[in-house]
Parts: sequence; structure tokens; C-alpha cells
Amino acid sequence: MENEKLNIGDQFELAVSFSQDDVKKFAELTKDTNPLHIDPEFATKSIFKRIIVPGFLSGAVFSRVFGTIFPGIGTIYLYQEMKFKKPVFCDEKYYARFMVTQLVKEKKRAEVFCTLKSEQGETCIEGNAIIMHPEKIF
Amino acid sequence: MENEKLNIGDQFELAVSFSQDDVKKFAELTKDTNPLHIDPEFATKSIFKRIIVPGFLSGAVFSRVFGTIFPGIGTIYLYQEMKFKKPVFCDEKYYARFMVTQLVKEKKRAEVFCTLKSEQGETCIEGNAIIMHPEKIF
Repeated sequence: MENEKLNIGDQFELAVSFSQDDVKKFAELTKDTNPLHIDPEFATKSIFKRIIVPGFLSGAVFSRVFGTIFPGIGTIYLYQEMKFKKPVFCDEKYYARFMVTQLVKEKKRAEVFCTLKSEQGETCIEGNAIIMHPEKIF
Repeated sequence: MENEKLNIGDQFELAVSFSQDDVKKFAELTKDTNPLHIDPEFATKSIFKRIIVPGFLSGAVFSRVFGTIFPGIGTIYLYQEMKFKKPVFCDEKYYARFMVTQLVKEKKRAEVFCTLKSEQGETCIEGNAIIMHPEKIF
């Protein structure tokens, strides 16, 4: 996407997965001791039946993509919403998908609809983002 | 908050800070190589003038508090929005604040307004959350 202008309808997709070790490290780093994320016995008895990946770990793929690939370095992150619709599990494949839905060229801003879907096509997280990019939105 | 019912107007506050090492670990874990977070030289030349803490690391305090303290274990996270209004820097003190603004008792859901403020009182992140808690919202 280097030196390319963002347009309405532009899309991007990235495959991601999260290991149990990623979740453990994330929980330590964020001091999130919620047993749903770190205690297999507790998680087994929960409505999810197994360890679930924290929403801020799985959702961080949105930030990663905006800041590094689509539209890339120089992106200023203004807004993100996340509807947590289905749990995200360890060691499964997910797809982060992005579509530019609005441009406010005079403010160099774009609205991007973001989803994280399972391989079976279920939407686990969805929500709008607003980003600004001085060189790629005009 | 153990065994207590959530009510409209209930508030909670937690002080947090983020080290440069936290940011480095978070960037590695989430594969977010955005130089704003990991390259001091690049960050110095940016509009922020220094390294900024990734929004998904600072914002993760909302998830931590919901899942572990307010209202605590058993919380189901349904929605979070984040308006990134001001940058969050390393090694400074911030306050995550929470206020219950709405209850939908029959669905065991609460809407909670969340902010992350600097010691100077500037709002860095703000947004609504929706959580569900089978035992604490009724």
C-alpha cells in the first residue's frame, strides 16, 4: 500500500492466531487475572467451555494493521469500537478484515469497518474505526 | 465489590502506568511494529514528540477492571468503544475511571462510561462499554 491513496471500498485482510502462551503473556502484561483467560479449570466450567483470548489481544490486530500495513506508518488512530459477538479461542485461525466505508478528505480521515472472523465465517468482533493519515487520505 | 449489586451511578477508579518495557513486550506480542511505539528516534520526529503507549495496551485496563474488580469475575464483555483523544506516554500516572450509566436488568446488562485520564485531568481515552453479569446485575 506504499504511496497509495485510500479509497472508499478498499479492503484488506490478515490471518491471525493466538497461542495459549500469547494469552498468558498478555494477561501478565496487562495484570488481567480474569480466570477465563488463564485458568483452564475455571474456563471449562464457564459458558465458553474453554480458555478465551482477551478482546484487547485479539482486537489489537486492528491497531497493528492500521499502523503498519493498511494504510501503514503515519496513521493516527482516532476511534475504535468493538462488539464482542463470539469468543476467540487459542490456536485457531481468524481473519481480520477491513473495508473503507467513508472518507472525509478535508480532515484526512477515513472510517473503516473492521471484523475478526473465524475460519467458519462467524463474526467474533466487529466495529468501526476512524483513522487519520496525512499522506494517504486526500 | 464482592456480592454487591451494580447500581446506576456506581463509580470505580484505578491508577495505572505503563513502562517502555511494557510497550516493547506488547509490540512483540501483538506484532505491532508501528515505530511510534518502538522507535524513539521516529517518535521524536512525530507530532507526539516521544514514544506513545499503544491504545490497546492502555485501553486494556478497562477489560482488566471489568473482569477482575468492577463488577469482577463472571463479567461477560459485550462492547467497548474508545475515542483516542490524547496520547498516553510511558512512566506517567493515569487514572481509569468507570461510571455505571444504564442498567437493563432483564438482560443483566450494564452500560459503563470509561475514561483514562492523566494526572493533569486530561482525557486520553473515553468511551462506553456494555457488560453482562449474571449475579451482579438484576
